[in-house]
Amino acid sequence: MQAAYYTGNHRFAIQPATSQPPQPGEVRLKVAYCGVCGTDVHIYHGSMDKRVRIPQVVGHEVSGEIEAIGEGVTGWQVGDRVAVRPLQPGTDDPSDNGQRHIGKNLKFIGIDTPGGMQAYWNVPAYTLHRLPENLSLTLGAMIEPLAVACHDVRLGELKPGENAVVIGGGPIGMLIALVARHAGANVLISEVNPARLQLAESLGLQTVNPKEQDLVAAVEAFSNGAMADVVFEVSGVQAGVTAMTQLPRARGRIVMVAIHSEPKSVDLFRFFWREIKLIGARVYEPEDFDEAIRLAASGELPLESLITQVSPLTDVQQVFETIDNNPAGMKYLLEC
Amino acid sequence: MQAAYYTGNHRFAIQPATSQPPQPGEVRLKVAYCGVCGTDVHIYHGSMDKRVRIPQVVGHEVSGEIEAIGEGVTGWQVGDRVAVRPLQPGTDDPSDNGQRHIGKNLKFIGIDTPGGMQAYWNVPAYTLHRLPENLSLTLGAMIEPLAVACHDVRLGELKPGENAVVIGGGPIGMLIALVARHAGANVLISEVNPARLQLAESLGLQTVNPKEQDLVAAVEAFSNGAMADVVFEVSGVQAGVTAMTQLPRARGRIVMVAIHSEPKSVDLFRFFWREIKLIGARVYEPEDFDEAIRLAASGELPLESLITQVSPLTDVQQVFETIDNNPAGMKYLLEC
Ligand SMILES: NC(=O)c1ccc[n+]([C@@H]2O[C@H](COP(=O)([O-])OP(=O)(O)OC[C@H]3O[C@@H](n4cnc5c(N)ncnc54)[C@H](O)[C@@H]3O)[C@@H](O)[C@H]2O)c1
Ligand SMILES: NC(=O)c1ccc[n+]([C@@H]2O[C@H](COP(=O)([O-])OP(=O)(O)OC[C@H]3O[C@@H](n4cnc5c(N)ncnc54)[C@H](O)[C@@H]3O)[C@@H](O)[C@H]2O)c1
Ligand SMILES: [Zn+2]
Ligand SMILES: [Zn+2]
Repeated sequence: MQAAYYTGNHRFAIQPATSQPPQPGEVRLKVAYCGVCGTDVHIYHGSMDKRVRIPQVVGHEVSGEIEAIGEGVTGWQVGDRVAVRPLQPGTDDPSDNGQRHIGKNLKFIGIDTPGGMQAYWNVPAYTLHRLPENLSLTLGAMIEPLAVACHDVRLGELKPGENAVVIGGGPIGMLIALVARHAGANVLISEVNPARLQLAESLGLQTVNPKEQDLVAAVEAFSNGAMADVVFEVSGVQAGVTAMTQLPRARGRIVMVAIHSEPKSVDLFRFFWREIKLIGARVYEPEDFDEAIRLAASGELPLESLITQVSPLTDVQQVFETIDNNPAGMKYLLEC
Repeated sequence: MQAAYYTGNHRFAIQPATSQPPQPGEVRLKVAYCGVCGTDVHIYHGSMDKRVRIPQVVGHEVSGEIEAIGEGVTGWQVGDRVAVRPLQPGTDDPSDNGQRHIGKNLKFIGIDTPGGMQAYWNVPAYTLHRLPENLSLTLGAMIEPLAVACHDVRLGELKPGENAVVIGGGPIGMLIALVARHAGANVLISEVNPARLQLAESLGLQTVNPKEQDLVAAVEAFSNGAMADVVFEVSGVQAGVTAMTQLPRARGRIVMVAIHSEPKSVDLFRFFWREIKLIGARVYEPEDFDEAIRLAASGELPLESLITQVSPLTDVQQVFETIDNNPAGMKYLLEC
């Protein structure tokens, strides 16, 4: 079989690999599709060389079919179609507060351990979620980022009829907007990239470009003065952080989805003044995967429109180069 | 009658004033005690000259007796002993979300309108809370800051047995610690002022001086590795903001009590990483006043120990000078 190894410094190498029999508790998947996540791009850029073990197969947005079943695994059969929830909880730490999906000793499969950009992939059976018949394996590779969006909307306690503003219309922000709209909210996306603004509009989402329009005034108009019940910060930039505190109404919520690797300047006065809440959200819990699969299978979200390109695994190097050069693209899938 | 007027630039002047009959909906109070709040000290320093109308009587931590009753006021009698909730809601704004205590057009009585540092004071009857027989008028002047603490503990959803860390042991932080302990939490106060640390210890509170000890390690030891369920940021300084994100456990809460007039550097990564919540809290709602009165009347909080000094109103200038020169002092009351 073939596997795509990240070999450091903007390089991927396709190399033959031997598929291993699944260990007890594991299954071997025949990988169908593996999506490229922003984190994979960070790895490609060399920013996570301390966390990955070069050469390493990465990738964690995976759909596939069960090809072999390890000892002690029950409830699964060869041929079952699945998506993988790429979290491997470690020993519990007292500070984890029972939250195993963000535990101190959690490993992220595909970053801290080998990932899905290969023909066959062994994963613990507890990571699997069954894909219904009517859900394609292509969309199956969208379940992981969609589960992120479901988690964020759930933690934001978004209710039907509420006004939601999504700051940053990348793949994650766009999925949050779609899930929020499906949940009955009125959604406005703030985004600066014209191609992404256009895509959002083509999906019927209201948009604003904060470089061209006053964002506060736009949210005021959008909400008839009520301002945002929930703001999702999904841009990861200081401008997004500066905006996020200006948009909520009294007792509004801000969901912190973006990963801010550096401390940012935050207007804490606004939290006091309007009793705003900031809610950190990371990955997903099993119920978010279930919800993502349910939503995807319902056909009610235009998920296909977010898939920019599907390429063979052997094109991996070129795909990462394209992503770097094409900020308009959304989701790139590798056919493994 | 006499009134203490803030006349600008570190000056108070005691001047005779004529007491006015209460307007419809108002009562005239014979002010018993008025506490000095940190905000009054900011006013004294000239930092709020845009908001006050010089010369102005300030003060909003008031106990007193009803001395005259305006037209249309029901449920109150001359001689009733009361505390004042100094909030005057304005017209509702759509962004207020029904939260009248933090409405856009709210006026804070004693800052935006005349305050209680005078012998007689007219206030809307809806601001009054009855003081029970067994609660002294001295402690009655502590109800306002105590209600702040009750609000903060309530919004932090603090539960019995939880670990709470209070950053900043000034009057507000100390009251939060006492209310939190009374609610059944294990409380640790982080404070840098040796006199305040000593006072906290004399009240049986656990303390840590982050200038002398590693705060994270101290919270780890205090909580047996569980870390904080709730952190109250009541210091108002960058060091407190830097600490606040390091102390919560997964899904822990931070209550933002302090007023940060300048944006601060915040480690937003920690919010994502541990799914922490930040909860802004401002003043109080009527139920917080009720709870503060209930707690104070129960005699179960050592409130007397927080009163540094009771002085006649005529000493107002000297009291503010003392506060400036004595960072160890806690609550100063003026006898009006
Ligand atoms: N919480 C989680 O578990 C989780 C999971 C996946 C991704 N993430 C994070 O979510 C964020 C978004 O991920 P993504 O893959 O969509 O990234 P992305 O970089 O594709 O999206 C960010 C978007 O923000 C836009 N943007 C930039 N400046 C802006 C501004 N001033 N106002 C509005 N928009 C602006 C960019 O044009 C871009 O489209 C990243 O920080 C990522 O690390 C978090
Ligand atoms: N949310 C509200 O409605 C509300 C109401 C009243 C007051 N406040 C605010 O609450 C804050 C506290 O009020 P206060 O009257 O107790 O003020 P204060 O200034 O007396 O208390 C702050 C305390 O923090 C301590 N401190 C300074 N650096 C520290 C550090 N690095 N670590 C730990 N402690 C440190 C100081 O020594 C001081 O004792 C202020 O910001 C005030 O404006 C908010
Ligand atoms: Zn990802
Ligand atoms: Zn005050």
